[in-house]
Amino acid sequence: MPQLRKDPVVGRWVIIAKTRARRPGNFVDRNDHEHEEVHRECPFCNVQQEGGDSVLSSGDVHIVSSEVYGSKQRKGLHRTKRGLYDVINGLGAHEIVIETSEHLTNMADLNVDQIQLVFEAYSARMQELEKNAQFRYVLAYKNYGPTAGGRKSAHTCSHIVATPVRPLRVKEKLIGAKNYFDINNRCVYCDIVAQELQSRERIIYETEHFLAVTPFAARLLFETWILPKVHHCDFPKGIVGKEGDLAVMMKILLKKLQVGLDDPAYNFVVQTAPFARGSLGERKWESIEKDYHWHIELMPRLTRVAGFEKGTGFYICAIPPENMAQYLREVETG
Amino acid sequence: MPQLRKDPVVGRWVIIAKTRARRPGNFVDRNDHEHEEVHRECPFCNVQQEGGDSVLSSGDVHIVSSEVYGSKQRKGLHRTKRGLYDVINGLGAHEIVIETSEHLTNMADLNVDQIQLVFEAYSARMQELEKNAQFRYVLAYKNYGPTAGGRKSAHTCSHIVATPVRPLRVKEKLIGAKNYFDINNRCVYCDIVAQELQSRERIIYETEHFLAVTPFAARLLFETWILPKVHHCDFPKGIVGKEGDLAVMMKILLKKLQVGLDDPAYNFVVQTAPFARGSLGERKWESIEKDYHWHIELMPRLTRVAGFEKGTGFYICAIPPENMAQYLREVETG
Repeated sequence: MPQLRKDPVVGRWVIIAKTRARRPGNFVDRNDHEHEEVHRECPFCNVQQEGGDSVLSSGDVHIVSSEVYGSKQRKGLHRTKRGLYDVINGLGAHEIVIETSEHLTNMADLNVDQIQLVFEAYSARMQELEKNAQFRYVLAYKNYGPTAGGRKSAHTCSHIVATPVRPLRVKEKLIGAKNYFDINNRCVYCDIVAQELQSRERIIYETEHFLAVTPFAARLLFETWILPKVHHCDFPKGIVGKEGDLAVMMKILLKKLQVGLDDPAYNFVVQTAPFARGSLGERKWESIEKDYHWHIELMPRLTRVAGFEKGTGFYICAIPPENMAQYLREVETG
Repeated sequence: MPQLRKDPVVGRWVIIAKTRARRPGNFVDRNDHEHEEVHRECPFCNVQQEGGDSVLSSGDVHIVSSEVYGSKQRKGLHRTKRGLYDVINGLGAHEIVIETSEHLTNMADLNVDQIQLVFEAYSARMQELEKNAQFRYVLAYKNYGPTAGGRKSAHTCSHIVATPVRPLRVKEKLIGAKNYFDINNRCVYCDIVAQELQSRERIIYETEHFLAVTPFAARLLFETWILPKVHHCDFPKGIVGKEGDLAVMMKILLKKLQVGLDDPAYNFVVQTAPFARGSLGERKWESIEKDYHWHIELMPRLTRVAGFEKGTGFYICAIPPENMAQYLREVETG
């Protein structure tokens, strides 16, 4: 059974995926999946015929439970202490969103309607998972391409993970947004949207409801934030009526990456407010509806993160964000 | 001139390395330096003959100032505000530690005496840089191998960077250690050392003054912490008289990686207490001598960090730390 272990200094939870012994040699494949055979017996191509395992099917989008981390929903989590270390046995839920039955590899090649179905599927599953009181957070994310943790030529899919703890980077954002609100009585993301709309120098693309910008303090080359123009802390509720508009935005951004940056690997993560906001933890969550603002981080993987960044959280970005935005703005997606 | 920019939500400082416009296409070399020609005109092989630029020479170790980030020490830093964004023009110091005049690529192949000289050089420069009142933090780190941000077949070197801000990951540790101390009246790292010495299941190697362990909540495969057994917050002061012992530890660990994991890329970062501890910032630093404990993080780069980890700080580790430690313990280094 998988285990969650907490770093006793910074409070970071780590998933220890396998508890059975395994020869370390098995993991030392530095080229990962790069040399893998292309498209042999893709298990996702026929998922709709197999049926039974789907937790959701909507048009040509199918969501299945994954066993990779032994992560079918379990009843009850077992929290223990080993000396100064905290452990939770069991993980939560891990679901795979098979974005189409066609063997496409990049979400950029799905049509807008299909991308909309994918976002609607995220929303439906997030709302369902929130009903389980043991979960504190839900993530929807995508890994495309080997350097982003995906497999080469893999069937386009994304992931939904529900966890009994709030991840460290998420907490950091929640706390930062709360601190800003406490001082300014305004949402920091709303202020970012206003300033970016005024200066326009970091805008990549704009739709009716969304703004795509390179962040002022970008960590990665061509890092992109998709910000809803209207405030809402929560993805499933904030997205209502805007699913199609978000699909247009995502399609255009992914096409710009594919065309302008030679089909790079990328990740995206939907950043939504945590569950169980009534419960008090390290901070009070009652103001979260006002101070947090859901958004999507889209991260092309063009350069590797070095030791300096890893050990310090202090990133070096080799191109000014204004130049990155200008470059992507000008990429024609046909 | 380079710029430091602050993320307005989480407070992370990012170095924007170049302010002149540069075609993004120039940066889209996903294979980085992997296909680079081996050893053409290495600039570090003859550094001791050129002399003039060295800021320190000790035996066969030479430290030179780098211009990569326009980062010769400047007088005065210019802090400005652009709407809600904070900016510092200028960076601090960036120095390159050329670890030997011989064209070796991996520190694992230096002899112990030479590694000792490298650690002594870190210490000397850290103490010198601390005298500059504009610096708040100093980092010593190494990138070995292309996937760790180093160049293939590059002359073995490490880096010293002094910054006018405290990096986010460092702050996180300082705050975590302080919170633990406030509750327990003990240093969290001292408690880790005690528990690891008792259980021994995560110890990779032990010397008179140091313990090398895989952390209980390891983020990365074969992540290793080198912990001083005796408490000290500060690398330059804590290391006095133990430089040779640390060199033995580092030599053995790097050899274990080289032999046992097929010469992987790796990074290490020396984590020491910040400068200017009298000044009050986001927290009070007066207790830092008691609550912080310097150490080294050594991170082999066997797997890529995917979007899930990137967006959430929630890592997945595929082998239990106890198995990793056992594997490295058993690797013979000859």
